[in-house]
Amino acid sequence: MSQALWCNFCMISRFRHAALVGKYQAQGMRPLLEEIAHVLTRRGLEVSVEAATAQNTGITGYTALSADELGRHCDIAIVVGGDGTMLGIARHLARFGVPVVGINQGRLGFITDVPVAGVARALNAVLNGDYEEETRAMLEGHVLRGGEPIYDAVAMNDVVLRSGATAMLELRVAVDGQFVANFRADGLILASPTGSTAYALSAGGPILHPSVAGWLLVPIASHMLSNRPIVLPDSGEVTIDIVSGREPSVNFDMQSLASLLHGDRISVRRSAHRVRFLHPPGWNYYATLRRKLHWNEGALPHDGHG
Amino acid sequence: MSQALWCNFCMISRFRHAALVGKYQAQGMRPLLEEIAHVLTRRGLEVSVEAATAQNTGITGYTALSADELGRHCDIAIVVGGDGTMLGIARHLARFGVPVVGINQGRLGFITDVPVAGVARALNAVLNGDYEEETRAMLEGHVLRGGEPIYDAVAMNDVVLRSGATAMLELRVAVDGQFVANFRADGLILASPTGSTAYALSAGGPILHPSVAGWLLVPIASHMLSNRPIVLPDSGEVTIDIVSGREPSVNFDMQSLASLLHGDRISVRRSAHRVRFLHPPGWNYYATLRRKLHWNEGALPHDGHG
Amino acid sequence: MSQALWCNFCMISRFRHAALVGKYQAQGMRPLLEEIAHVLTRRGLEVSVEAATAQNTGITGYTALSADELGRHCDIAIVVGGDGTMLGIARHLARFGVPVVGINQGRLGFITDVPVAGVARALNAVLNGDYEEETRAMLEGHVLRGGEPIYDAVAMNDVVLRSGATAMLELRVAVDGQFVANFRADGLILASPTGSTAYALSAGGPILHPSVAGWLLVPIASHMLSNRPIVLPDSGEVTIDIVSGREPSVNFDMQSLASLLHGDRISVRRSAHRVRFLHPPGWNYYATLRRKLHWNEGALPHDGHG
Amino acid sequence: MSQALWCNFCMISRFRHAALVGKYQAQGMRPLLEEIAHVLTRRGLEVSVEAATAQNTGITGYTALSADELGRHCDIAIVVGGDGTMLGIARHLARFGVPVVGINQGRLGFITDVPVAGVARALNAVLNGDYEEETRAMLEGHVLRGGEPIYDAVAMNDVVLRSGATAMLELRVAVDGQFVANFRADGLILASPTGSTAYALSAGGPILHPSVAGWLLVPIASHMLSNRPIVLPDSGEVTIDIVSGREPSVNFDMQSLASLLHGDRISVRRSAHRVRFLHPPGWNYYATLRRKLHWNEGALPHDGHG
Repeated sequence: MSQALWCNFCMISRFRHAALVGKYQAQGMRPLLEEIAHVLTRRGLEVSVEAATAQNTGITGYTALSADELGRHCDIAIVVGGDGTMLGIARHLARFGVPVVGINQGRLGFITDVPVAGVARALNAVLNGDYEEETRAMLEGHVLRGGEPIYDAVAMNDVVLRSGATAMLELRVAVDGQFVANFRADGLILASPTGSTAYALSAGGPILHPSVAGWLLVPIASHMLSNRPIVLPDSGEVTIDIVSGREPSVNFDMQSLASLLHGDRISVRRSAHRVRFLHPPGWNYYATLRRKLHWNEGALPHDGHG
Repeated sequence: MSQALWCNFCMISRFRHAALVGKYQAQGMRPLLEEIAHVLTRRGLEVSVEAATAQNTGITGYTALSADELGRHCDIAIVVGGDGTMLGIARHLARFGVPVVGINQGRLGFITDVPVAGVARALNAVLNGDYEEETRAMLEGHVLRGGEPIYDAVAMNDVVLRSGATAMLELRVAVDGQFVANFRADGLILASPTGSTAYALSAGGPILHPSVAGWLLVPIASHMLSNRPIVLPDSGEVTIDIVSGREPSVNFDMQSLASLLHGDRISVRRSAHRVRFLHPPGWNYYATLRRKLHWNEGALPHDGHG
Repeated sequence: MSQALWCNFCMISRFRHAALVGKYQAQGMRPLLEEIAHVLTRRGLEVSVEAATAQNTGITGYTALSADELGRHCDIAIVVGGDGTMLGIARHLARFGVPVVGINQGRLGFITDVPVAGVARALNAVLNGDYEEETRAMLEGHVLRGGEPIYDAVAMNDVVLRSGATAMLELRVAVDGQFVANFRADGLILASPTGSTAYALSAGGPILHPSVAGWLLVPIASHMLSNRPIVLPDSGEVTIDIVSGREPSVNFDMQSLASLLHGDRISVRRSAHRVRFLHPPGWNYYATLRRKLHWNEGALPHDGHG
Repeated sequence: MSQALWCNFCMISRFRHAALVGKYQAQGMRPLLEEIAHVLTRRGLEVSVEAATAQNTGITGYTALSADELGRHCDIAIVVGGDGTMLGIARHLARFGVPVVGINQGRLGFITDVPVAGVARALNAVLNGDYEEETRAMLEGHVLRGGEPIYDAVAMNDVVLRSGATAMLELRVAVDGQFVANFRADGLILASPTGSTAYALSAGGPILHPSVAGWLLVPIASHMLSNRPIVLPDSGEVTIDIVSGREPSVNFDMQSLASLLHGDRISVRRSAHRVRFLHPPGWNYYATLRRKLHWNEGALPHDGHG
């Protein structure tokens, strides 16, 4: 990331070069992306478009760059899509420290929280330095076979071990070399606070506030009823050994996948990089929870008194 | 209940005498109740108003009767309020076999499913014999002290045992004399299928379809993680003995309450009477579930992919 | 099944021809199986051994018959193994009405409840007519593709729909043609009361007493938090349509498996046949629950007061 | 706490003055307490006995001191009882920085992990400096009425708000002034990592490793199914306002209790003091989890395959 400039007096933006990233295979996004690009260029920013986004939408007039090139050259990224789009790009940009703003065309997500309706106003506020910055920890996983690394990936949400269609997995979990437990289950989720409101929530996990320095370990359909979700410190190394089970695999954010063998070890640490989100002014985490989990609804789902 | 008449040719209503019951302490209901009364009298029905409803709303011109008198004289009851209002009156009317129609002023309930907006049309359909009749089992409970009955009540939703503010209860449960388990918990819910979508759902129980002949036994915050909810046959006698715990009490539908002592036994059987609901044509149970539990919402609460 | 005879005076067994079935690939079982065969022949019963059991153990001197042949010729079956062995054979024998006794070499199971230690005494009691007979409903499932049946199977425990390693399934469930809900989840379990203490329990379902005429519908890691387990009446037809998801499959008791396509329908009804279990005298269902779920333990897992 | 001395060469204990604390109302403990006192005096330590313990057991020959006096004068405390005994005394001693060793007469607890059988050996190891020291965060709560503090207490496990027998509570929760949610539930638990394996686990919470700097917020039988447990950072101020509900009360570790009124606010912060536990060498947290939650059992509670 090149360094952003900032002048408190003349309100010239701290940001100089914006990356523009759209949803995967969203051909109809061109008008919206162009509108956003205009907002940015009017404010004097250089704009580059992510290569696949440029190709899918046919947008022209801006440099098309790969995710890594965006990371090296830009000092802010505008991501237009849902939480899945954000998952795909943010972990790449995190390596370069590029902050991201998430614009959502449909219902707002947990991490894409600027509605299309207010996009110009929100972007101008951000460019004026009026935003809430928040960072999120990521998981960095390595697959070891015979002690040798054969695969690695970074996850914003979760590292998930699962078996194939009919099999139960047996997994041996340790933290910093200390044995935790053998889990017999459909699978196991190791989630970041960001991931705690995604798949881990479906599997019975709690919500982890993003500022808690912990990972969530959630067995999926555990055979032991007392194998409850555990919140582990995020400072150590979590290792998961494949003891038994058919067709085991590990995926990172449901996006990158590796097939596993018995005896393989998955080792997970906190990534040295954190995702940087720039939220609209007034944003707060609890408001997002209330909106996404429908806590706002005045009515109770099963209140039968009145 | 006096017998309702019915003529398939002239469409004279099968119903002759309607009971009108309003929400507890709802002074503002008078216009709505009068509108409903007019629909009924226009169709040739005699109308009686539940005594407390008449007093609270100041409605006049109709005989005011107690719940029991309504049961003896009427052949249909129109209940205006929420599920709580229905709980209060339906178990009384069930003894007399009087069917009930539930009109809801606010959000529809699980068992009060006619919206105020369509009340005239819905009532006329029902009076024309165009409705879905459905019956619900009720729980009949007795409190025994030293083997002697000291209290009894009927519940449409649930019989709930709880301790006072800080204490854990220990309860011994048996079915038809067969020991089931000792539960150590904040309390214990024995729910009918109707009650399965009320308090029992909050405590972790499943949904029981009303045509399943079962009760749901759900411990509240059980100390044993493997003390999962159990669905018991509704044909037997469930006994619950108070082994220990401070200030134990039992309530029926959260409405009638008895303080208990150690050694007291609560004995629960299926009531000989069933509540009879008349639903608008096209009603079905699953649609109610979807609406009340927000299954209709196209969006997933925590879907982060897009 | 040939008819068993019975004489109350001379205590000649009601049973005439016993089937002997051992665990899959359990070469070391021969001595135990021979001991059981001797108990049976001493009591005048003819003994036939299931063909694979005979081959695996090398047991000789008894007719070796297929599962279907055992069903046609025998009037009692002795199954030696765990609950999985019982699942494999009992649904075949149920078609012929042959009752089964489950002998367990290891820890007792939910449905194999005679310990090896007391096998002779228990068998003699059963042969004397001293037992608790109990029957269990089974699920019969058909896979329809383009409306045509392409696969069918019977399950004692459950019919389970699942996706492959990373995909979510979307499934449309209806009962007797009434739409219930669209489930977005890792999968869906339709379990019998027998299956309620198996996989469905891991996925968050309640326990269903075997005499409750219901099925348990449990989504696995549902995306909707309010998609709670539902107990459905077992009298209707449950249909499950594959709306979307990668590599969907359906399995019956984790034993027979079919790959599915989008648009496939799984239709499940109650089988015309029930499994007949003969339990040792004094057996009761709740005692099995307490033992298997460790409710007997005097100590609480997390009681911190003393 | 007076400063402990330590000499690496002559192995004179670092500890000089031990507090001895027994279980509440445990008259039969005298021989065990005397045995422990002898171990301590043989090692040259001065021994004082907690006043109530001295009175209950009739133990003599040692100074009897109040909890606060023990805190001021001793540099180690030996607590004999269960986790409840430890809860009662440890929060007092934490204020003075006195480390505690927990001896358990019955089944080992989560925080009393030295069995009586090995008490002399374990104590000598500890006195030799051979132990695992671990500290635990505590909650400090204040009840405010009309903005004025009327009650305060410290909790090692949890601060619990509950209603009386039949009422639902409505509680408004905020963190550092940011509104989190209105909870409608039987009650609400705010637990430390230590408390995560106590009452909060019964109410559906996850396990929090003691080194995670977080509190666990768990609603009890919440009316909103999506009101899942939340892990909050422990660095802020959590405020809970009583909006409605009958007979609300708050308790700290189930031991000190205050009745509340509508409009009361409970404000909770991390205590400035931490409990210091001295565990036997080789102790680790995960081993305690496995033992207490029965994860060690080779057998699965509902494994039906074999």
